[in-house]
Amino acid sequence: MCPVVIYKLIPLEAFKIEAKMISLQSCLEIIDRELETFKSEKKTPSELYEPVYYILSLGGKRIRPALALMACNLFSNDVSEAVKPALAIEVFHNFTLVHDDIMDNAPIRRSKPTVHSKWDNNVAILSGDAMQIMAYRLICESKPAILKSLLDIFNTTALEVCEGQQYDMNFATRNDVTLGEYIRMIELKTSVLLAASLKIGAVCAEAPESEAQKLYEFGRNLGLAFQIQDDYLDVYANRDVFGKATGGDIAENKKTFLLIKSLELATGKHAKTLQDAINNQITDADEKVALVKDVYNLLNIPELAIKSIENYTNKAFKYLDSVVVDNSRKELLHELARDLMKRDR
Amino acid sequence: MCPVVIYKLIPLEAFKIEAKMISLQSCLEIIDRELETFKSEKKTPSELYEPVYYILSLGGKRIRPALALMACNLFSNDVSEAVKPALAIEVFHNFTLVHDDIMDNAPIRRSKPTVHSKWDNNVAILSGDAMQIMAYRLICESKPAILKSLLDIFNTTALEVCEGQQYDMNFATRNDVTLGEYIRMIELKTSVLLAASLKIGAVCAEAPESEAQKLYEFGRNLGLAFQIQDDYLDVYANRDVFGKATGGDIAENKKTFLLIKSLELATGKHAKTLQDAINNQITDADEKVALVKDVYNLLNIPELAIKSIENYTNKAFKYLDSVVVDNSRKELLHELARDLMKRDR
Repeated sequence: MCPVVIYKLIPLEAFKIEAKMISLQSCLEIIDRELETFKSEKKTPSELYEPVYYILSLGGKRIRPALALMACNLFSNDVSEAVKPALAIEVFHNFTLVHDDIMDNAPIRRSKPTVHSKWDNNVAILSGDAMQIMAYRLICESKPAILKSLLDIFNTTALEVCEGQQYDMNFATRNDVTLGEYIRMIELKTSVLLAASLKIGAVCAEAPESEAQKLYEFGRNLGLAFQIQDDYLDVYANRDVFGKATGGDIAENKKTFLLIKSLELATGKHAKTLQDAINNQITDADEKVALVKDVYNLLNIPELAIKSIENYTNKAFKYLDSVVVDNSRKELLHELARDLMKRDR
Repeated sequence: MCPVVIYKLIPLEAFKIEAKMISLQSCLEIIDRELETFKSEKKTPSELYEPVYYILSLGGKRIRPALALMACNLFSNDVSEAVKPALAIEVFHNFTLVHDDIMDNAPIRRSKPTVHSKWDNNVAILSGDAMQIMAYRLICESKPAILKSLLDIFNTTALEVCEGQQYDMNFATRNDVTLGEYIRMIELKTSVLLAASLKIGAVCAEAPESEAQKLYEFGRNLGLAFQIQDDYLDVYANRDVFGKATGGDIAENKKTFLLIKSLELATGKHAKTLQDAINNQITDADEKVALVKDVYNLLNIPELAIKSIENYTNKAFKYLDSVVVDNSRKELLHELARDLMKRDR
């Protein structure tokens, strides 16, 4: 069942195919078309399936299915085998959004009401459950030769995403989260699904296990870089470009790379400012953001964050560079990764 | 991948093995042992997995995994291939209980606090999600020859169970539910998982598709009979033997076989009594139960319910009888089904 067995007999050179690469635009078009077909099924009862189609209609970057298709395309000109698994990943990702939004009590997602606020919690719970099953059903459309490999990746990753969400919830009531714990949490909650998307795409092309695993590590490190960048941008983004009010994480005492690192380094009055902030002793939100940001700056936290982002990004690209296919085939993934990491820093 | 292809070449006589049958007691011991192993994994974070182990420790009849093992044992003396799928079904069933209890706002399950009342809704949502993935992971331990067949049954059934729960919730706010709609709802919510348990067991023994499907129909009809009996017993059980206060369904305006059938048949003052009841015009619960029960009796509803139960039970046994294995091998399933259908009527 394991593709590596098949490919041990074929020289890796065989994967150095020149064309035909498909663009990010083409990937997104494939995904949109598949999503439309998926939504046109019109299953009953409508009360169960309408919220499923609704959340899938809210848009989003479709980064995970795009990564799956592009990873498949690294090894094969024909990406058709990766289409259903790519869709499965997008459906699974959106399921996690539906349930996370209940847990976080979030009213808005992509400028529209969340499922539980448009309908109610029960609808959101049950429709989410159905989405998880629908994701598995899509994976199960894969050919027998790769089915078990895909399911193994999917099962492990899906459970890890749940673990990440649980750690994230645990951290909300803890003030002693270590940087190691934090990195592990964002790895589980965010990175492993990006990593799995790439690995699944590679397995769909029946790429050797070693190459699929390199793509997994590329995605895992890129995901970590992306999440730490997200923490950084919440405080240091150019508001006009990034389009998001800054400092929200500080106001909410969110355990971010910046806060955890500063709690680790701060002494004396800086430590006291941070303690006052997280113990809600500073009631004015703007003042709290300004004071904590000052401490971050004095402790060189932004530089440390940038260093960490660069560290994970470099690691990611090293893994991508080591994949044994012609470098020209990697250009699109390179470009996508660079775009992801260049959000106004 | 489909077992029927394999078995077309083998005469059905080959399945008429004399011994070795395993008792219900042995089945339950196997399941208990497997559950203990499953719970001893002690995965982290404990906040995610403790509720999983808790709900699985509350007991229950373990009827679904027992059916899977017994169905496998019909065709094969070795039931080991059915053990993990049987456990998967029990984990999935318990996942539905965890999420249903949130939706129904139920504080107690098997005389113990439900997961969401012992912890909170978020914990119950996320632990339930993890259980669904864990169920798939258990199914995926099956050998390649049957994996796709098992997953197809499991995917279809799991989605149907969600649909059944949604119909059940829809019915709570409707007074025009037809008997056909009701039967379809209980089929989806309850019967298909019993049916799938049997079919999965048969597939694990690599039984012919035709025989596996007969067991599915046995379980489906038995499930319908069981659910209608449940409705009947809520009003007509001997309270001492059945151990449950009677009339709860009437008090809650639950759309049961009895209420739907009586709404269909009642005219004049009987129709008015029923309308007053479901429109909450009768405020005293005991009076409401007594008045509605009177209407049921006058319209011969209990006899109609018993007829329907017998009808589905007979259909179920006809399917079991038609399975092409030696009749002696069916005795345990016969017995279990008879026990299920003899709860103080």
